Amino acid sequence: RHLYGYSGLTLAKWTITICTGLLVGCVAYIISSTQEFIITCTKIWTQKTLSSSLAIAFLGYAVYSIVLVLISSCLVLYWAPAAAGGGVTLVMAYLNGNDIPDLLRFRTLITKIVGTICTITSSLPLGQEGPMVHIGAAIASTLTWMHGEFPNQKKYEDKRTCCSKIHPRAWPFDFHNDKDRREFISAGTAAGLAAAFGSPVGGVLYSLEEASSFWSRKVMWRSLVCTAVTTMLLSWLHKREFSFALPGSLSFHGLQPVFHLQDLPLFLFTSAAAGILGAFINTSHGWLARVRPPSANAISRIVEACGATLVSAAVIFIIPYLFGQCLPVPETNADEEFWFAYTCSVQDSMSGLNMYNDLATLLFSVPHETIKHLLQLGQDVDPYFTVKSLSIYTVSFLAIFILAYGIATPGGIFMPSMMVGASVGALLGCIFRLIFPGANIQPGLHALIGATALLGGVFRSSISVVVIMVEGTGSIDFILPVIMAVVVSNWVAHHIHQHGAYEADLQQLAHVHFLQSEPPRQLIPLTAFNIMSSHVVGFEEIVPVTDVLKVLRSTRHNGFPVFKSSHLHSNDAGGKMVGLILRHQLLLLLEQHAFAEVDLSSVKDSDKWQFPYFGCMNAKKLQVLESAMRAYHFCHCPHRRDLTSRPEAIDELDLYGFFESRVSTKSSHGTIEGGGTMLDARERPKKTFVLDLRPFMNRVPLTVRGECSAQRVYIIFRTLGLRHLCVTDSNGRVVGMITRKDLGLASRKSSVSTSRWSTTL
Amino acid sequence: RHLYGYSGLTLAKWTITICTGLLVGCVAYIISSTQEFIITCTKIWTQKTLSSSLAIAFLGYAVYSIVLVLISSCLVLYWAPAAAGGGVTLVMAYLNGNDIPDLLRFRTLITKIVGTICTITSSLPLGQEGPMVHIGAAIASTLTWMHGEFPNQKKYEDKRTCCSKIHPRAWPFDFHNDKDRREFISAGTAAGLAAAFGSPVGGVLYSLEEASSFWSRKVMWRSLVCTAVTTMLLSWLHKREFSFALPGSLSFHGLQPVFHLQDLPLFLFTSAAAGILGAFINTSHGWLARVRPPSANAISRIVEACGATLVSAAVIFIIPYLFGQCLPVPETNADEEFWFAYTCSVQDSMSGLNMYNDLATLLFSVPHETIKHLLQLGQDVDPYFTVKSLSIYTVSFLAIFILAYGIATPGGIFMPSMMVGASVGALLGCIFRLIFPGANIQPGLHALIGATALLGGVFRSSISVVVIMVEGTGSIDFILPVIMAVVVSNWVAHHIHQHGAYEADLQQLAHVHFLQSEPPRQLIPLTAFNIMSSHVVGFEEIVPVTDVLKVLRSTRHNGFPVFKSSHLHSNDAGGKMVGLILRHQLLLLLEQHAFAEVDLSSVKDSDKWQFPYFGCMNAKKLQVLESAMRAYHFCHCPHRRDLTSRPEAIDELDLYGFFESRVSTKSSHGTIEGGGTMLDARERPKKTFVLDLRPFMNRVPLTVRGECSAQRVYIIFRTLGLRHLCVTDSNGRVVGMITRKDLGLASRKSSVSTSRWSTTL
Repeated sequence: RHLYGYSGLTLAKWTITICTGLLVGCVAYIISSTQEFIITCTKIWTQKTLSSSLAIAFLGYAVYSIVLVLISSCLVLYWAPAAAGGGVTLVMAYLNGNDIPDLLRFRTLITKIVGTICTITSSLPLGQEGPMVHIGAAIASTLTWMHGEFPNQKKYEDKRTCCSKIHPRAWPFDFHNDKDRREFISAGTAAGLAAAFGSPVGGVLYSLEEASSFWSRKVMWRSLVCTAVTTMLLSWLHKREFSFALPGSLSFHGLQPVFHLQDLPLFLFTSAAAGILGAFINTSHGWLARVRPPSANAISRIVEACGATLVSAAVIFIIPYLFGQCLPVPETNADEEFWFAYTCSVQDSMSGLNMYNDLATLLFSVPHETIKHLLQLGQDVDPYFTVKSLSIYTVSFLAIFILAYGIATPGGIFMPSMMVGASVGALLGCIFRLIFPGANIQPGLHALIGATALLGGVFRSSISVVVIMVEGTGSIDFILPVIMAVVVSNWVAHHIHQHGAYEADLQQLAHVHFLQSEPPRQLIPLTAFNIMSSHVVGFEEIVPVTDVLKVLRSTRHNGFPVFKSSHLHSNDAGGKMVGLILRHQLLLLLEQHAFAEVDLSSVKDSDKWQFPYFGCMNAKKLQVLESAMRAYHFCHCPHRRDLTSRPEAIDELDLYGFFESRVSTKSSHGTIEGGGTMLDARERPKKTFVLDLRPFMNRVPLTVRGECSAQRVYIIFRTLGLRHLCVTDSNGRVVGMITRKDLGLASRKSSVSTSRWSTTL
Repeated sequence: RHLYGYSGLTLAKWTITICTGLLVGCVAYIISSTQEFIITCTKIWTQKTLSSSLAIAFLGYAVYSIVLVLISSCLVLYWAPAAAGGGVTLVMAYLNGNDIPDLLRFRTLITKIVGTICTITSSLPLGQEGPMVHIGAAIASTLTWMHGEFPNQKKYEDKRTCCSKIHPRAWPFDFHNDKDRREFISAGTAAGLAAAFGSPVGGVLYSLEEASSFWSRKVMWRSLVCTAVTTMLLSWLHKREFSFALPGSLSFHGLQPVFHLQDLPLFLFTSAAAGILGAFINTSHGWLARVRPPSANAISRIVEACGATLVSAAVIFIIPYLFGQCLPVPETNADEEFWFAYTCSVQDSMSGLNMYNDLATLLFSVPHETIKHLLQLGQDVDPYFTVKSLSIYTVSFLAIFILAYGIATPGGIFMPSMMVGASVGALLGCIFRLIFPGANIQPGLHALIGATALLGGVFRSSISVVVIMVEGTGSIDFILPVIMAVVVSNWVAHHIHQHGAYEADLQQLAHVHFLQSEPPRQLIPLTAFNIMSSHVVGFEEIVPVTDVLKVLRSTRHNGFPVFKSSHLHSNDAGGKMVGLILRHQLLLLLEQHAFAEVDLSSVKDSDKWQFPYFGCMNAKKLQVLESAMRAYHFCHCPHRRDLTSRPEAIDELDLYGFFESRVSTKSSHGTIEGGGTMLDARERPKKTFVLDLRPFMNRVPLTVRGECSAQRVYIIFRTLGLRHLCVTDSNGRVVGMITRKDLGLASRKSSVSTSRWSTTL
């Protein structure tokens, strides 16, 4: 349809966007309703068993939890390791331009969904928000996948022709560039978070502020449509009736949005306290990360996960037994499944009221129900929980949360962080109420502020947290206290632990080099010379296949500068950089046998020289080859780009057989083994197989001069989303290359090594 | 305070941020309460006078309106031309990196405030939202201004030394770079919009999505704090009691957020209709802009403004007189000043009810009150206005709005657009109610959807409009229909008129070259060669003052490449670009007399040669000079950077006197007049005054090769915020320069001229 400038491509893109939204909504509904169903069943079973024996109930609960965690951690460790943890960090790294093997595979998606359901229904204090972000990204990525047929050379081996049949038709829509895919994955990320909180605008802002490194108006539109579709579907699924209401699960009532000026210091106190707690969570996570077993050791990781589950189950069981208080169920919402009697008699013999154990109710319930009830503590409402129980709950939940944050199962820290924040806030609110009995203090409001402030302290997001809280609670009246809480807690937390949870995690991942949007301070005294890696391997424009094979086998570089050949040109032109060629381009050229057998010494002037391809390599074929180059990574081991940089990738091309057969027919031997044959031109046979890189190389790669400041290099690299940047001297000769890795390493260097570097130059 | 890494700079920045917020809040309160007060007075006066004579009342109203508009347009045209219109477009252009003379001057700020009050209290259908954005930016800019003392050379003329007393202390905090100032101005912009709508998050998102071209986490934080402060202050000012409630003026009640699936087509219809109308407003504005008198002709601009006011006053007076219907005041809100009797008897003699003229009420009232009442039309509420009146109102208001949109007074189109949208929506809602009497149709909801969709159609914003509507109405229940309305209307409007109001305005401004975040399609077939301007003037590293003066006087360029001098170096090094020097750097060097008298022919190797400065020019002085260069634009005619590129700027340096006195003492004459003395070295005196550019030039300017695609150049230019980009050939010699102007011109070229360009190369 080429109507009004709308081609099928645009239609396809919007179709994918809407499908992503719908699928993410379905998955979110499945996860959350499964969680609610199973947790309710567990509560009923526990209640029943408890009346006969505490030991059996605990044993049953612990075994059930451990089995679930065992399933999820085995899946993760033995089938799809990329599905561990929340996944937000890795999605961020991917959207930043890193190559994360297997991150968005279908296998990882399945593991993530199953594993998340197992984890959140077990006793572990982890949530589904982080995994939903990863699931959204993986769904978007899977939908963009149009499995283009990319015929392997082997099929056509008998034809012995340089041009396999690569048709441009194999890729109906060209989603095979990273920019398009990033757009969809950003939208999927937004939809994931929107589904988790029922927050369409919040999801978009989260994707903008945290997850995505590249953003544009187009992405904004795509994300907004995607999140709106997700939210509408979720709203319909929950209520089974079409309505435009938000499905936000935290909706509260009973609070009055009227405060006096004297409440302000209390709000500030709660925000600051939650901010400090947030920074404490980050710090303790950093400490514990050093003690935890390494990921490579699968058995000990599984033992760790099961141990954490056991501790968690024990805490959940024993704490309410020892400290829980029996309170009468409030009349206004007496029929909710939320209230959990546990050790209390279900019906009090004296007053005839239904009773509940407040600590057990807090610990056993579905997390978002708990938060909802904490936020409902208005001025006129009797507190559902005693101060003593709230403080015990806060401490014990925080302990098992820190223990569980970092084990090898899918599970996010968004919901537990909110939980800690809400309970701290509610606790402080209740305490304030005792201290200032006359003042208009609403513990629920303090719980809201505490939850927001803790999110601010842990994640250091600003506007997205504000909007998520507003949309999640479905009430805009409290937006100003929420903004204040975020600002204060960020300020406080920043002085205790410099980085947010995501940034801290990203810094610990050794193989990921995340480039922040602002250049780090460590780069200020450095120049491009200081950070580049000076071991550069390049090719000449017309290069013997043997040289290419040797270099590809001996290095793992992905970009190679192309020079003017020095023996054909005068001194000052020779060695000058004229382009950049990528590893996968070379691999494709080799795979498609796009080389020719020529006498190199007969070439006088490479600028005018025509390359004698085997017959069928005409201009159209060149075009097809070029488009195949763009799609290369999506057809050859799509989720494992790192495989192409193995030396074995060369052997898999199976070129030896080809060469030998050709060589034997022409009875010229020895071209394959041994490089550096350039010097002894006499011994070598006159004709060699050569590749012509000129039609394929990037002729105008961006280069910087060595004197350029490292900060500037960082900004260029980051804003333009580069992978390689050549550093040249004043004569246009390449003296080094800067890759993401070099920048990442330079940013992490401590100031000590920085000063050492500066002095060596 | 160097506590925890917090220096005074950070404190000063936050102080400025909070002060900006407070001041913007005050100004917004003054403007809106003045408007309400005066409009209420006008209504009372009209009501009184009307009982005696219609003609006198009309005359009085018209004269009063015209006098106000006359004041505001005279102020604009004769005192501060940059204050005309909404100002959002120009602020956007400024934040994009354009230099807009006088845009953020204190004089412009005053004119904008006074002019806006005059315009919105007159009969013109213009709002204060756009001007508030401009006012916010101007307040932020004024506060960042620390008037550093920058002693002029003239004071120290008698000392005849090269170094005037420039102290680094003159600038206590270095806000004198464009990046810092842009941050504050972005925050001010956000605060302006937040104040206009009582929408803290919406203001930030508006600044992010529309106004600001460069955005970072820091700016997000600064804007959020700024808007929160503004909103809290406004909320306090309106209610005289501290509360965290939003001051949103559009708050409505009476609507139910429950819809059925069958309402969806009606919502879509309303959204599409409003979207079409939005595109129509843009299109007709484009047409009318060609007919309007040019800005240079002040008298005809004033006549135009007065004419538009007269027409507007006539419409407001006559339409209700002819078509208005008398309705009883609804009992629920009978005591509001909103209801306007006009020609109806205030109290009906038959029923004893208070009556109002519905058309007069719509046309005479404060705009946001009208919108508020349109949004209140719930399912159970009797419509306040008849279908006939609503349709007449829509058409007549649209007509005078299009007429007034573009006259030379301050005034924005945000509120009138919302008004048109709300009335269209309410009208459609009332019609739907008549057609489907059984269905649950709430005209107020359609009014909300219509207002949102019209904003989407006119401005093509996405998420900011959604959040502004949610925060402005104080109700989050309707967020999903609002998102839907924005998406649909944008899609519809995009097919009728390609650009939003701001983009269309920016394209019409000849002296502004706005660079969108995505490169335009016109650039696809072009390369850097095609778009660069090949007339490049450069200097050698050691350059005679006479040459500099001659070039500065004959060109208006702002950046000059610096070459290796060709007569000192071998052929391939000579002419090679080694740096870039800016016009203001040269001007400062000349002003500070940082030159020396040397014999150029004695210089053998410029790389090693030491420049013999007059005694006091040591390393520290060089540093001071450099920091003075950074602050140059903020101390020399700060709001008129364009003045430095006039030829007269050279004469103002008053160098002739200096040269003549120096020359006369040394009795060597003729160095000043006539350039090109390089060739006849014998006739020229041995010693010339020369400037050494090496310590000051930017040694690693970014360069691109001529073959680089124009789109890539655009992206580099835009993301790195460059002003000049040198284009080099493969030997490192400069062949052209690309400036913002070149990119802007190339983007505007039609495809016809593009193809012509391509063929010439």
